[in-house]
Amino acid sequence: MTACDLLITRARVLTCNAAGEAIPEGWVAVRDGRILAIGGPGQTAPQEAAERIDAAGRILLPGLVNAHTHLPMTLFRGLADDLPLERWLNDYIFPAERMMLDPETVRAGALLALAELALSGTTTCGEGYFHADAVAEAVLASGLRAVIGQGVIDHPAPGVPDPALNLAAARAFCDRWRGRSPRIHPSVFCHAPYTCSAETLAGAKRLCAERDLLFQVHAAETRREREQSLQRHGVTPIAFLERAGVLDERTLLHHAVWVDEADLAVIARSGCAVSHNPESNLKLASGIAPLPEMLARGIPVGLGTDGSASNNDLDLFGAMDLAAKIHKAARLDPTAVSAAQVLDLATRGGARALGLAADIGSIEPGKLADLVLLETRSPHLTPLHDPVSAVVYAARGADVHTVWVGGRRIVEAGRLLSFDAAAAMARVEEAACRLRRRLPPLGRNRRS
Amino acid sequence: MTACDLLITRARVLTCNAAGEAIPEGWVAVRDGRILAIGGPGQTAPQEAAERIDAAGRILLPGLVNAHTHLPMTLFRGLADDLPLERWLNDYIFPAERMMLDPETVRAGALLALAELALSGTTTCGEGYFHADAVAEAVLASGLRAVIGQGVIDHPAPGVPDPALNLAAARAFCDRWRGRSPRIHPSVFCHAPYTCSAETLAGAKRLCAERDLLFQVHAAETRREREQSLQRHGVTPIAFLERAGVLDERTLLHHAVWVDEADLAVIARSGCAVSHNPESNLKLASGIAPLPEMLARGIPVGLGTDGSASNNDLDLFGAMDLAAKIHKAARLDPTAVSAAQVLDLATRGGARALGLAADIGSIEPGKLADLVLLETRSPHLTPLHDPVSAVVYAARGADVHTVWVGGRRIVEAGRLLSFDAAAAMARVEEAACRLRRRLPPLGRNRRS
Repeated sequence: MTACDLLITRARVLTCNAAGEAIPEGWVAVRDGRILAIGGPGQTAPQEAAERIDAAGRILLPGLVNAHTHLPMTLFRGLADDLPLERWLNDYIFPAERMMLDPETVRAGALLALAELALSGTTTCGEGYFHADAVAEAVLASGLRAVIGQGVIDHPAPGVPDPALNLAAARAFCDRWRGRSPRIHPSVFCHAPYTCSAETLAGAKRLCAERDLLFQVHAAETRREREQSLQRHGVTPIAFLERAGVLDERTLLHHAVWVDEADLAVIARSGCAVSHNPESNLKLASGIAPLPEMLARGIPVGLGTDGSASNNDLDLFGAMDLAAKIHKAARLDPTAVSAAQVLDLATRGGARALGLAADIGSIEPGKLADLVLLETRSPHLTPLHDPVSAVVYAARGADVHTVWVGGRRIVEAGRLLSFDAAAAMARVEEAACRLRRRLPPLGRNRRS
Repeated sequence: MTACDLLITRARVLTCNAAGEAIPEGWVAVRDGRILAIGGPGQTAPQEAAERIDAAGRILLPGLVNAHTHLPMTLFRGLADDLPLERWLNDYIFPAERMMLDPETVRAGALLALAELALSGTTTCGEGYFHADAVAEAVLASGLRAVIGQGVIDHPAPGVPDPALNLAAARAFCDRWRGRSPRIHPSVFCHAPYTCSAETLAGAKRLCAERDLLFQVHAAETRREREQSLQRHGVTPIAFLERAGVLDERTLLHHAVWVDEADLAVIARSGCAVSHNPESNLKLASGIAPLPEMLARGIPVGLGTDGSASNNDLDLFGAMDLAAKIHKAARLDPTAVSAAQVLDLATRGGARALGLAADIGSIEPGKLADLVLLETRSPHLTPLHDPVSAVVYAARGADVHTVWVGGRRIVEAGRLLSFDAAAAMARVEEAACRLRRRLPPLGRNRRS
């Protein structure tokens, strides 16, 4: 066989392909940023490799795909937890966004988030926020991969004070970034059916359709949203989105917690995808999304963390653990969602939800070499009866040893190689100090 | 002020005392294994200290208290997940216990668990299993602290083939270990009201009462248990335990998921404590315990992980995160349980549940110097708007930098100092290999 740039040997390879195949002692060859070939002990690996890595005992995964993030919201991590939603938004998050959101601060917050993502094994995220140019610059600098949505909302927004220009701003962002980097996929992120009119939604979808871009929108996240939609529009949020003409296979709905059987049928028929964000849904008291029903209907589902203000971390291993457990308890059925199904959501499922299934989400010849090597020699991963179980129920981001994106190593031995995380941390901590001085005191150590 | 052995300065001290006080830049002085004094910048620390640690920016916590473990079950971590309970128990766990449970294997499994506990910031656990002597030997060797229950069940059990001798075995264990080490508190762990007769329960409780030891029992864990109790005894599991005369302030009930208002009133009136194990309750599809109601009634509650087979790790940070989130979603109320309340459960609450509140669970002068220092300079803990939020929602065991038990350092820079974890890992992996060869194949990579 021909030569390669990188040969990883003796790993426990979880391919995350459609059959969920694992190779107990496998090798993966990378050339020109893509996976050239994979195999087991019986198959001959390339003899020539510019670099060889003996991964004996370690688990090799495809880079994780976080289907729902708001990267710059690292700025607001832990700013005001455990509050009623309205108070959280109106007294803290909205004022904080008004005070803080210049492009430079957004860039710093996004870089910090990208450091956290890389160090915890996520190589691609489905992102949406304002000042998307600053986010895209951060992603470009970080070495990670992202679908980046410019936020669209029918209110004055950071960077877009006049809502009449929200679609123009999104269009300009998409046109600036289309084709600029193979790691950056511009997108439009409409905030929600209750903050965007049917016209705005349809306009944003049209903009995406003309350019073959992903259209993202929060949908059916809370009971209140559902009730208000029924009251104002006479239909559920999902039916409202369908009526606006935005549901198809290039649409990604975030959350879909409050959906009924009819909504699920609409989603399945339309071909659109859903991001499942159990940590955020729990922390914000939104509820528990009907994941088993979505999977039973064949709806493409990716796993997400949501932003740091509502989680409060971006470690997809924690989201996997919770996604595999929560539906068991909610239904009193230990078979409700399996570890293997959840690993699929965090890899292949997310890739499909983001429209990147041809290139990422599994370790298969021809796909991009987005790879994660997990250290397994630690007490909490011993014994290793089952690598899939270990990944989902016991591993954490801190177990990530090496990360490659498109064949380029961005993390090694748990250290970030591709950019200076310390600088981003310092900038964010400094911005956070300014922010704390300007917001109402929270009454720390509140006991209830 | 007088001299001390250890002076930790400039830490963000979360005292976890009854008022939940924090000192943003505090010092803690340790002498003879106990906390001598604490203070802030305005207060004078001891001038003479044998050792000084500058903990600038780091968070100092009391050592975490894991109220419910089965340490040797690390052997079965990830052995057979996502199965119906009966199949999990009858096809895997019970046969595995029959095959594996000699004292040497139990000791290795317990040592592995203790390594995991120490590295993730837990200094004390409420333990129960068979071959409790082997567990106690492991705890003694590890440097950690534990309440260790000898398992009692009305069936043949590992180490106690004749159930007629189960109380005699428990008595012998307790008498061997009482007063032997200040770090080891013998106890009796009756398996459950459905596996122990009222006579066995009462006998075990009597044994504890005579020696002032903690009595532990699983109770009201599953719906099935509750239904069977109503069918067989005409009363709930809690009422059955009350009738057996085992509920008082020296009793710790594990789980208490399926309890009604009357049960909660019984628990509150009796003064007994409860361990809350949300990860296990979710993974085994047991349900969601009514934690807010327990707290409202003033029931002493500790936080636990349960054994590794049903979690699958012993990291109490994960349990804190989940305990703070799950009740919000279950009630659609973001104020249901706060981060501060959960941190309290994992420290002071656990200490109280285990009957050790006078000595551990908070950073207060006179208490044992069981301390945990968290590294905070990492992307996922930046910015640090609120240390309590950071600990509960974003920190993980891997953030633990230094751990002291009774003033003795057992972890430093994330490395275990007090014993050889690698040897325990090797022994457990070897035992696990033997086990896998003897159990029915699971069909790895099963997708549902």
